[in-house]
Amino acid sequence: MTLNAADEAFATRLSTLVPQDGLRPPEARYAQDPRGRREGQVGVLALPRDVHQVSTLVKAAAEARVPVLPYGGGTGLVGGQVAWDGPAPLVISLERMSAIRGVYPTENVLVAEAGAVLADVQAAAEAEDRLFPLSLAAEGSCRIGGNLSTNAGGVNVLRYGNARDLCLGLEAVLPNGEIWNGLTRLRKDNTGYDLRNLLVGAEGTLGIITAAALKLSPVPVGQGTAMIVVPSAAAALDLLAVARAIVGDGVSAFELIHRQGLEFLTEVLPDVRQPFAEPPEWCVLIELGLGAGLDPAQMLEQLFEQAAEQGLALDGVIAQSQAQRQELWTVREHIPEANRLIGSIASHDISVPISLIPDFVEEAGKRIAAKGEFRVNAFGHAGDGNLHYNIFPPKGQSRDAFKPMAGDLTRIVHDLVHQMGGSISAEHGIGRLKAADLERYGDPTKLAAMRAIKAALDPLGIMNPGAVLRA
Amino acid sequence: MTLNAADEAFATRLSTLVPQDGLRPPEARYAQDPRGRREGQVGVLALPRDVHQVSTLVKAAAEARVPVLPYGGGTGLVGGQVAWDGPAPLVISLERMSAIRGVYPTENVLVAEAGAVLADVQAAAEAEDRLFPLSLAAEGSCRIGGNLSTNAGGVNVLRYGNARDLCLGLEAVLPNGEIWNGLTRLRKDNTGYDLRNLLVGAEGTLGIITAAALKLSPVPVGQGTAMIVVPSAAAALDLLAVARAIVGDGVSAFELIHRQGLEFLTEVLPDVRQPFAEPPEWCVLIELGLGAGLDPAQMLEQLFEQAAEQGLALDGVIAQSQAQRQELWTVREHIPEANRLIGSIASHDISVPISLIPDFVEEAGKRIAAKGEFRVNAFGHAGDGNLHYNIFPPKGQSRDAFKPMAGDLTRIVHDLVHQMGGSISAEHGIGRLKAADLERYGDPTKLAAMRAIKAALDPLGIMNPGAVLRA
Repeated sequence: MTLNAADEAFATRLSTLVPQDGLRPPEARYAQDPRGRREGQVGVLALPRDVHQVSTLVKAAAEARVPVLPYGGGTGLVGGQVAWDGPAPLVISLERMSAIRGVYPTENVLVAEAGAVLADVQAAAEAEDRLFPLSLAAEGSCRIGGNLSTNAGGVNVLRYGNARDLCLGLEAVLPNGEIWNGLTRLRKDNTGYDLRNLLVGAEGTLGIITAAALKLSPVPVGQGTAMIVVPSAAAALDLLAVARAIVGDGVSAFELIHRQGLEFLTEVLPDVRQPFAEPPEWCVLIELGLGAGLDPAQMLEQLFEQAAEQGLALDGVIAQSQAQRQELWTVREHIPEANRLIGSIASHDISVPISLIPDFVEEAGKRIAAKGEFRVNAFGHAGDGNLHYNIFPPKGQSRDAFKPMAGDLTRIVHDLVHQMGGSISAEHGIGRLKAADLERYGDPTKLAAMRAIKAALDPLGIMNPGAVLRA
Repeated sequence: MTLNAADEAFATRLSTLVPQDGLRPPEARYAQDPRGRREGQVGVLALPRDVHQVSTLVKAAAEARVPVLPYGGGTGLVGGQVAWDGPAPLVISLERMSAIRGVYPTENVLVAEAGAVLADVQAAAEAEDRLFPLSLAAEGSCRIGGNLSTNAGGVNVLRYGNARDLCLGLEAVLPNGEIWNGLTRLRKDNTGYDLRNLLVGAEGTLGIITAAALKLSPVPVGQGTAMIVVPSAAAALDLLAVARAIVGDGVSAFELIHRQGLEFLTEVLPDVRQPFAEPPEWCVLIELGLGAGLDPAQMLEQLFEQAAEQGLALDGVIAQSQAQRQELWTVREHIPEANRLIGSIASHDISVPISLIPDFVEEAGKRIAAKGEFRVNAFGHAGDGNLHYNIFPPKGQSRDAFKPMAGDLTRIVHDLVHQMGGSISAEHGIGRLKAADLERYGDPTKLAAMRAIKAALDPLGIMNPGAVLRA
């Protein structure tokens, strides 16, 4: 199906259908990739105020065969929101639909419009003494519609699940412009196919999420945080098992940190205070969230003692105050920024079955080393089997000289992940950046089913063309 | 599309494709509805031993335009497994594919074939000191493939989610006979559309689940159970909030029980020992599952005291032993059997937003009473907003005289549920029994999308025709 660019004539047509202030000339910031890889295109920019305007816009785009790019906070890392090929799209930004429509503390439910910034959703829950547990680096600017469309992960997946697991219902506009009123606040609803989860993670290729009913949790009465030095990546997993034997699913975060990440901090962000004089080869940041009657610091001490006895803990710091907790998290949260300042040759968002993490780290390290001298920073959500595996040039050298090798390095990493039954996109999605890799590694039956579903729901192919599935 | 019955010629054709012992003449038990509503049909019965045989069978059915009925434990309550209309199908029973393929304690994952009985899955997890939390009345005979296909609920949804939430990956045969190898053990995998959740809850209309990777949890260190008398259904919800404020998500079950259910027990199952001399109007069964360092009985006492102070608890029994815990659960678990012995005129599996449960109970009671004298037993998973709302004749009268009113009564209940933003099928699914109601109450945009997806994945319409979506 040939699509047409969202040109001036189309803009004129739209101006007869939606309020004048809902349309704007293309703005450069909607065309930017946060990692600066490639520039996208914006034909017409629309900023609807309600679901009916979104419906009107999509119907007009369908009629004119114009591609539609749903736009949230623009923080996606795989180019799902950057139209770097095909005709210039109608960009529909949800930013004006940012209301919290309601909070229902008795039900542990919050209903937010798609344009609500994640941090605002968290704050609205907190105001009612509830927790919205989705938490990730971009939470100050990413929007909940984008979080759902990409099935965002983050640091609390271990305990609370990813964005998909936190969504009870959706309001959305399908590719034909029809509105789906699926904004239920129900915990149980077995009435037909799971359209909700089909839209969640579809990265805007099957419709536009306009609002969501979200699951809240009780705020843990006590939280405790520790950083524990472990002798190996394998020991980290054993430590997690010990922690779970003690506090059940009270472990809310379990982040693996490699020496390389700490050395990067020392190199480019020396103001970040580090807990250990010598950066250890491996350490983990563990957080507990517990109910009443338990002292998290005491539980962490018990954990540390038990782990030390079993040779799973070599050293450790247990936060004794809110300030110390924050300090430990600051270390973890600044690693991506340090990576950015150092400049990676190739970065990967992978997962493997949790028990294979140690094997993966060892084998990937070997295969990368066979290609030359590199620095590798493997870190992330070990409790979910999800590592960010980033490859950097040797100290003092610029990445530019190594960039031609990026494709080969990625192939080595992704081949190994695939071989281990893992995923080449654990939490960032496919977007445009990984569409070719999805074809390479994806199950053929699943890919065929995906294409059939796409053709069934979006026969004109107008919704975010080029993302997830290539033409 | 006209379909053909699975006749002798088709059986002969199949006998050239799969081993002889994999085919059997139609057997009556595969045609029975557990509630005895209607008899189904079995054309040919196949009992494959592996996914390749399932694939072969489905391909042959597609070629011959023969309907396929996937068969698990046969315990479904909405006729999804009973072909009571259309040509006689090829029934594919998964009972011989019942292996536990692996347990991965470090990963908290278990891989089971679709025919594994739920209780066997639970036991395999327990053998590795892990919990597979899905638990429901039929667990001794239902099979995990059916649990997933119907997105089964049960008593632990409050804490652990329904079957959908416990599934990480699937192996399945799609309607074209192709095998989808989606049996990942990954906690995070954002590689394309969520085919897993599309098959989960599709009740066998989009393919046949042949195996699943399932999520395990730590076994709670301590469990405590209490039955608490509350002054009203509204007070029950407040009690749940108090419990959560104390133990966070340590509340693993929260079941509402009405006086009518206890009176039924007295009437038809007098051997079931009841905790209260006089059956209270409302009581709740609450179960806590806690980590180390907490005494569940003590937490329940604290809860009871706090609730009593706020007027939310009038009386209560806290189990002091495993035997007493079992006794309290026995009361809850025998209510469905008592219902069956009394004989309902109409039964409903509904959910509403949790905070609306008291309004629903009151308003539904009024509307039913306006139709005549009935006994109503409303009970179930209040923490999930899910009630089983069953209507019975007055004491001493047979239901037969009232059966002609069943449709009207159901309409009254479902109309109210719909009006309150609820679901006419919370945990049992649509099957054949509720397909017309799905058309009546379902969102038109969602229904159209469902039909498009069905046509895309099953263009011949061979997979469980008549279930979920009517022709």
